[in-house]
Amino acid sequence: MNDVNWSTKEKEAAQEAFDKAYTREIESLVEEVRQKVAHISEIDEIWKLHDFLSAKRHEIDGKYDYSYSALIFVFSQLLKEGWLTLEELHVLDREKLAKISALARM
Amino acid sequence: MNDVNWSTKEKEAAQEAFDKAYTREIESLVEEVRQKVAHISEIDEIWKLHDFLSAKRHEIDGKYDYSYSALIFVFSQLLKEGWLTLEELHVLDREKLAKISALARM
Repeated sequence: MNDVNWSTKEKEAAQEAFDKAYTREIESLVEEVRQKVAHISEIDEIWKLHDFLSAKRHEIDGKYDYSYSALIFVFSQLLKEGWLTLEELHVLDREKLAKISALARM
Repeated sequence: MNDVNWSTKEKEAAQEAFDKAYTREIESLVEEVRQKVAHISEIDEIWKLHDFLSAKRHEIDGKYDYSYSALIFVFSQLLKEGWLTLEELHVLDREKLAKISALARM
């Protein structure tokens, strides 16, 4: 699925939903890091926190791929993980929504 | 300078001072990370924090080299950076102390 399958309105809504999910996930990550740092009691836990952030960065960089060929999978993943709701994607056409929600249930 | 130049008493004191400096530096780092995380307001600052931790880990891993051939340099560096005082190394013989404090002033 390339970008000719996406109307201008869909593209705008997709970009907005994508950014919203990213912001939510990062805000949640910042909160998680705050909690972890607040509870560091052993010296080496700072390096565990660094390992945790390295893994998260790798995961998030890989996940947020804004290309129209990947977007259906990206959205289904974000839906599955709770960073987006199906309602927030309602501008997308029926076929895309069906694919996204089917993939999210897998 | 290899380990035959270090008496048992000196080795014990060196290990203790080394560990003390490491603990201080890491505790200070944890506090710095807490401050940074508390003041994150922009999304991408979490990755700046990750970059900061990566650089610190690299720097600290390189600096804390407990080998008797490196220890004079290591202690002079820790002295210079304020993680140790010369008083905390007073068990070391006069020659080692002179080298350490001369290097720390460079």
